[in-house]
Formats: sequence, C-alpha cells, structure tokens
Amino acid sequence: MRLRNKPWAKDKIAAYPQHVIPDPEAQRGRWHELFGNDGPIHVEIGTGKGKFLTEMGRLHPDMNFIGIELYPSVLVSALDKLIESGLPNVKLLNANAKDLTAFFAEGEVARIYLNFSDPWPKKRHEKRRLTHRGFLSLYERVLAEDGDIHLKTDNQSFFEYSLVSLSQYGFVLAAVQLDLHRSDVVGNVMTEYEEKFSLKGNRIYRCEAVRPPRRP
Amino acid sequence: MRLRNKPWAKDKIAAYPQHVIPDPEAQRGRWHELFGNDGPIHVEIGTGKGKFLTEMGRLHPDMNFIGIELYPSVLVSALDKLIESGLPNVKLLNANAKDLTAFFAEGEVARIYLNFSDPWPKKRHEKRRLTHRGFLSLYERVLAEDGDIHLKTDNQSFFEYSLVSLSQYGFVLAAVQLDLHRSDVVGNVMTEYEEKFSLKGNRIYRCEAVRPPRRP
Repeated sequence: MRLRNKPWAKDKIAAYPQHVIPDPEAQRGRWHELFGNDGPIHVEIGTGKGKFLTEMGRLHPDMNFIGIELYPSVLVSALDKLIESGLPNVKLLNANAKDLTAFFAEGEVARIYLNFSDPWPKKRHEKRRLTHRGFLSLYERVLAEDGDIHLKTDNQSFFEYSLVSLSQYGFVLAAVQLDLHRSDVVGNVMTEYEEKFSLKGNRIYRCEAVRPPRRP
Repeated sequence: MRLRNKPWAKDKIAAYPQHVIPDPEAQRGRWHELFGNDGPIHVEIGTGKGKFLTEMGRLHPDMNFIGIELYPSVLVSALDKLIESGLPNVKLLNANAKDLTAFFAEGEVARIYLNFSDPWPKKRHEKRRLTHRGFLSLYERVLAEDGDIHLKTDNQSFFEYSLVSLSQYGFVLAAVQLDLHRSDVVGNVMTEYEEKFSLKGNRIYRCEAVRPPRRP
C-alpha cells in the first residue's frame, strides 16, 4: 500500500482511545470484558484502511473484531470509518504483529484474518512474511483449540508459499479457493485492495487453515 | 481421455508379460527382485498412453517405474512405447488402483504420481477421485516412511479438493505450483494431456505431498 505521511495521525489516534486501544497489553486475557460479551474474537493482522474490518463488524454484530495495523497514517482511515459507524464490536490496535502474544492470552482468539499481506518476495525477507513459521507459532499460541486462519491474497507466489508453510507447521487446510470471485463462496467481504485488483480481472486466492491439534 | 475400443488390446497385452506384469499380486514385496536393483520404486496411477512413464524411465535409469492403467485400449499405447524403447526399469499393470495394497507391500513404494486424474466433478462421485481419503489410505500404506505424492492437474476444482483432502488426511505439502509452466520448476516431464492443454494456455497446477508421519 502506498503510504502518505500524515504527521497528525498519532495525535488523532491518541484522541480516540475508545476505538484505538492504547494499552493492548493491559487487555491481554480480558478482551471479552472490554467488549462486554462472550462473542468470538476475530483479529485481522494488517487491517489497512479498515474496510474489511468495519464491514465484518456491521455484518456480524454477535462477533468482536480487532484490527492490528502498524502504520498510523493508514490506521487513521480505519479510525475514521469507526468514528462514523460507531460500531461497539470493532477495535483497532496501532501495533506490530510480532507482539501478538503480548496482546492476547493463549486461546483467546477464534480467528485470524490475513488479507493481502505484504508478500515480501525476496528470499532474504522470508521471515517478514506473515505466514512464516515464526508468525505461525504466534498464531498457534493465541488461537483457540479449533481456531483458524482465513487468508486472501492476489499474489500467487505468496499463496504457494503460505499453503506449504501452513501445512509444514501443522495447520490443516479446511478450504482452498484458487479464484475466489469466480467460486461458489458467498458473503465474501472485500478489502480496498481486493476491489481494486478484482476490477483488473486478477485472481484472488483464498484458504482456511485450522490450528494444529495440541500434542497429547 | 477419449476411449477408442480396441478388441485386440487384451490379447496384445497378454503377449508381453515382460512389460505388462500379468500377476502383480505375486510380485508384492518383491518388486526390487523383479527389477534386479535397489533403486526406488515410483508408481503412476492412471498411466494413460505412457508418455510420462517412459520419458521418466529414460531420464532416470537408476529408478524403477510402474504404471497402472485400467483400460486395455489405452494401455496398449503405453505398451507400444515400452516395446520400442525396451526400457528395463519400466513396467505396466493392467489393473485398478483400488487394489493397490494387493500389489505393493507396506512401504515398498517411494513415490506415487497422479497426473491429470479424472476429476469426477459430481459430489456423488467424490469417492472415485484419486485424492479421496479412501485412496489416500491406500497410498499411505504402500508408501515408504518419507514417501510422497506428486500431483499435476489442469482442473482447478480437483486441485482445490486435493489440497484440502491431502492436508486433512495428514499429508504435508512440500511444494505447490499454481502455474507450473510459468514457474521455476525445471525438468518437468509432460504427459500427452499436459502438452495438449498447455498449448491452449491453460494453467497446470502441481503439488508434492509427503506421507503422514507414522503415529508413535
């Protein structure tokens, strides 16, 4: 995503602590309390401008959604959507995915969304890919017993890599779509990026992968 | 594949018992003896007209190849290639894949090739797909500890199904190519079908899946 620097972004984020949680470490293990319900907690890593997250929040009022985004200049767009919609079941974190286990207790998360993650195509950047085993081990820890990952991308190489990495780590594929927009999947919520790319006619790849069973 | 009936096919097959093994049950656990070497045994299920199998046999003289084909009218084309080439490390079986464990002992097979298998698209025919769990359990039994399956297809739905079925059974994906002929894979040997379809510009999908580890 193209980053336009917005020097005022951090101040704006700080002004809305009810939407962008300023102390996610303090909520670790207590997210259900914060949301005030027992609905499942879904986390989108790299939430970008927040279209997917807020639409999901609107469509599923019985579920809770947390979007993690590293870049303040991007996160403010998601914040604007949240201010406008006032959705109580959607929260944002201005944070790094590598700190995931500091924010969530073991088994606290029901589902992780990876939407159009940076493919980091160079081999020397492999560890930065959000489906590298380093990240998968974080997801495994925060995901519930039957928790899963829902991944979408238009990047063929990243998808090939992700299928193998997930499988080798021990995640089990529950669904694969190699051309999502020409599949029988219903209720797909598109991200900003996805809308742009599907208009070009590019294929969107998608998979669902279930957390490895705990070893006995 | 279009089947042209050849009433003489069975007689021709019977005339070449050195190429088309007439009593595969009798070879169970003794294929290395029959080949006269300790090279790995690779089995192609649905070997068709035998282009892939005979080319592989020529390229890899240190390995042994067995092609299984149900239809005599098709198998005779593979037989012709074998008569012509005289390859000692390639054998054919006129047999049904469902009898695989009658032909091979536990762990006797190093690799199974599934090339452009019939996708059986109707849900009620799911059990006939060569990546249905029923077949996977046969492959698991005959494959060696570190044995694997190499699968190629141009059928998107069958590939999606196969990735999920393999993963859910416990096979681990070691490689995935979503556009084989525009990938960095070298040394790919094409089947008749693959040549025809790649000329049309169709994508070829490929994966490698390693046998589930034996449970302790």
